[in-house]
Parts: sequence; C-alpha cells; structure tokens
Amino acid sequence: MKCVRCKQKAKILLKRHNAAFCNECFLYYYRNQVTKNIRKYKMFDKKDKILAVISGGKDSMALWDVLVKEGYNVVAMYINLGIGEYSNRSQKVVESFASKNNLPLIVKDIKKEFGLDIYKLSKTLKRSPCSICGSIKRYLFNKVAYDGGFSAVATGHNLDDEAATLLGNVLSWEEGYLARQAPVLPQTHPKLIKKVKPLYSLTERENLYYVLLNKIEFLHEECPHSVGARSILFKEVLNKLEEESPGTKQRFLNGFLEKGRRHFQDVSEKLELRECKTCGQVTTTEECSFCRFVKICNHQQET
Amino acid sequence: MKCVRCKQKAKILLKRHNAAFCNECFLYYYRNQVTKNIRKYKMFDKKDKILAVISGGKDSMALWDVLVKEGYNVVAMYINLGIGEYSNRSQKVVESFASKNNLPLIVKDIKKEFGLDIYKLSKTLKRSPCSICGSIKRYLFNKVAYDGGFSAVATGHNLDDEAATLLGNVLSWEEGYLARQAPVLPQTHPKLIKKVKPLYSLTERENLYYVLLNKIEFLHEECPHSVGARSILFKEVLNKLEEESPGTKQRFLNGFLEKGRRHFQDVSEKLELRECKTCGQVTTTEECSFCRFVKICNHQQET
Repeated sequence: MKCVRCKQKAKILLKRHNAAFCNECFLYYYRNQVTKNIRKYKMFDKKDKILAVISGGKDSMALWDVLVKEGYNVVAMYINLGIGEYSNRSQKVVESFASKNNLPLIVKDIKKEFGLDIYKLSKTLKRSPCSICGSIKRYLFNKVAYDGGFSAVATGHNLDDEAATLLGNVLSWEEGYLARQAPVLPQTHPKLIKKVKPLYSLTERENLYYVLLNKIEFLHEECPHSVGARSILFKEVLNKLEEESPGTKQRFLNGFLEKGRRHFQDVSEKLELRECKTCGQVTTTEECSFCRFVKICNHQQET
Repeated sequence: MKCVRCKQKAKILLKRHNAAFCNECFLYYYRNQVTKNIRKYKMFDKKDKILAVISGGKDSMALWDVLVKEGYNVVAMYINLGIGEYSNRSQKVVESFASKNNLPLIVKDIKKEFGLDIYKLSKTLKRSPCSICGSIKRYLFNKVAYDGGFSAVATGHNLDDEAATLLGNVLSWEEGYLARQAPVLPQTHPKLIKKVKPLYSLTERENLYYVLLNKIEFLHEECPHSVGARSILFKEVLNKLEEESPGTKQRFLNGFLEKGRRHFQDVSEKLELRECKTCGQVTTTEECSFCRFVKICNHQQET
C-alpha cells in the first residue's frame, strides 16, 4: 500500500476516499481538509478572534492544535462541569496543553463560579444530566464569546457526530433541526455568536490519528453519562453501514448539505428571541434557563 | 399479558403499539389496519377492479387473502421470472391457493411467453439480475392492468420494506425518489396505472402472523438473489434501532409521510414520457426496456 501523495509506504488507509497516506502526508491531508472546510463555509479568517471549545477529548484537542498551527487567532475555553473525576482529569489535560504550548485558555468552573450542580438540577427539574449540561455549555460559550468580542465559537464536532445527529433528526423528521443542521450556524441575533464546526468532514478515527501523530495528550475516556446515549446507538448503526459500504457517512452528510437541507429552509422559526431579565443574554422566555439554574442551586444551598 | 381488546389471554405482543392481542383480535386489528390504509390514501373502493401482484411470499399472500376477505374485487397476478426452482415452487403455492379458494389468477411466464431470460440479460447488459427483474415486473404489472381495465395495481410492500427503501433514499438524499415514495403512486399518464401498497403500515412479522393464523400456505424461502442486497442491510440496521426503541420504523415512515415528504414535492420530474415504438407502453426512450429485452433474448436464441 503506497501513499497516494508521495508514493512512499502508506500507514493510514482511508477507505471512504479509497486513499492511503504515510504519516506526514496524512497530516498534510488533514490540515488541508480543515482549512478547506473553513474557507468553503466562510467560517472565519486570520483576522477573526475565535473561541475554541475544548473538552480535552481527541476531537477538540485536534481542533485546538490544528487551528493554532494554521495561524488562526484562537483562544481556548474549557468548562469544568463538575462530573466528578472525569471533569478534573479533563481540566488537567487541557491546562497542561495550554501551559506547555503557551496558549491562551479561559477556564470556567460551574460549581465554583456559579454554584451550579448538574446532578441537583437534573433531580429537581426531572431532566437528564446531559440536557442540563448542554444548556449550560451553550450559554457559557456564547456569553464568553459575546463578552470577549469573539467572531465565532468553534467546536470539535466530527463527521461521526454530525452523521449521527442527522440520522436522529431524519428518523423523527425533525424539520426544525433539519433546517438548522450545518457546519455553520450563522449569527441570528447580535448577542448570539456564530457557531462553526471546522472538523465536520473528518472522522473520529482521523482526529485520533491526528492527535496521536502529533503526540498531543487527550482524555481517552468518554463522559460517564454518554453510556447508552441514543447518539452512540446511531453511531453503531452508521458504522455498520460504513463497514459494508465505505463512504456512507460522508455521502449521507454531504448529500444532506448539498441536496437535502435546502428543502427544509421554508420551516419557519417561530421562536421569538428576547433578552433575559436577569443576565441580558438571549432566550425565548422571560428568564433564561442558566439564570433559573443558578437560582435553583443557590436556593437549595441556602435551605 | 392480556389482549387489549377482549381482555382474554394475549398471544401476540406488538411492542411498537404497546399492545397485545389474542389471535382473534389480532386478525381484527390487522384487517382494520388494512382497510384504514385503503381509505386514508383513497387507494380504491369496492367497485374498483384491483390487480394484486402475488409472489407467493407471506406479504403478498396476506395481501391477497385480506383483500378477498374484505370483499374487494381482486384478480391476482403471478409472474414466473425463471429463477430456477424458486420460481417453480412459488408458482405452485400461488396456483394452489387460487384453485382451493376459487379465485381468479393471471399467470405470466416470461420465458414461455416472451423468451426472456434474466440471466442472459444480466450478462449481456452488465446489469444485476434484480434490476432486470424489477423492470420486467413493473412493465408486466402495468401492461396487464392497463389492458385489463384495472383501476389499481396492489403490492404487498410492508413497513419493513418501506422503511428500508426510505433509509436508502435518505442516506443518498435521492430527491426524486423521496418526492415519489408513498403508499400510493397516482396515475400520471393514461397508460400508467395507479400503484398502491395497502400493507405499508404492517410489519413483516404481522404479515407472517396473519398467514400463519389463517393457515395460508406461502413460500418460506427468499429469492436467491436477495442475499447481500442493500435492502437487507438496511432492514438489519432498522431492526437494531427498533429493538432499542420500539416504534422507530413506524415513526420514521409516518414522520416522512406526514412531515418530510412534502418538502421534496418541488423536485421537478424532468422525465418526458412517451409511448414505445414497438409496444405502445409508456417509456422515456424510443423503445421501452421490455421490448429491448425481448429483442436481445430472441436475437441470442437465433444465433
């Protein structure tokens, strides 16, 4: 098996591209894919200030590293969500990478800074910890980006993530979600910062290769709450299809972005956006869920 | 486990409906589903002449029996496609049911009547036997229905078939197919007879129960060419999703019919329909594929 680029011995086979690469050319291919995605979807350019959301896993660590190496103006942000030792271990990984490479990093700790506890909230509100966690993360990314004058929030969503989300949306024909799913969520309100996914076309496996080849430390374990998640089932099913027919995930996602998605653009967004009476951030209700979470947790602590 | 209808001991659990039935009430439920589908999609009524396409498998045998029992004016049609002993065994099953129950049956034998051989055609045209077979079946169903003055052609497509087809169409975002997939394909040309799928909401397993409870003979084996078919892979994947979350297939198909499908109605059908210079049936080329098949096979026989 020879590298398609330099014709030396290949190390990495990408079946869906029917291509093999040596380590060096794989990194060239990888960085090229990322910059192509950024340009294709006009995500940002070198003069923009980007907030990269980093969890410490392989995908976000790859994102952080590749954006820095490509010369983008990136500040990383890590949120400690208070998920026991998992959160502490991931914070260490992220802080260590920042300090070793002298990179700017914003750390938020939801317990220390806001008194938030996703387990208390989950119990009180009878919602899954994952939905609480998602709300908190979305709020903080956006708030930090808005307050700091960032042009975009970048996340490490990969092809497997995006294909699994798409499969879930299609299985239930969630028209609103189908209308919005894309590598770029544009700014629809002055206080809602643009969200971008520069790795949307790269697989989990390619992100793993990238961090391994670059000797980047990352947290190997998944969040303990991800066990049994629907997204994992969808990924399993897509892996089965991919195995039988390499390129299925890419065809599914790209076909959606190029042909499917436009059919849902007429789905009108009926949500009225307003500003939270407490914090001023964008919400659809009088007070945003984050501020309500803070009240619930601090009230419980007092009693 | 009690029957949801009569409260006697249940024999059949339908997880997706969260319901169990005794044998008798299952048959009531089944027939009710079929007649509801026929009415909901205005497929046909009691005064229409229906051509039911029967392969001898559980689904089409269930279709035939239930349409007869519900008092519809049904003529069955069986096509011997020359797939070795599989075809001969299925023809026997179909003929035996017709004669036992004194039901009208049209039998077509593509070799005896037209000299067609799907294996020769597959080799000559470098197309899979399944695609040749599909073309021949579609042609003959429609021609017999048109010549015989039928109002509709009914097939035994079930929920598993329809969900698998939909998954395939969605994975490649086949806009044209997504625009057309439905329990009814309306008549778009005077010579193209309406196609209907009265069993589209019933699963393979429910059709199997129906034929077993009614002691209807059917061919247990699948067509030998179906091994490795993409549709089987899609069914496996959907079965996995159904197992983890009962009702997934139904939600996927019904969601499509109620919410998804309408988004694709703007996909313009660019095919120009004309009449075959040889047989006069509808085609998109000068001569229809069936007439070309006949020429190829008869030419090969002469040489």
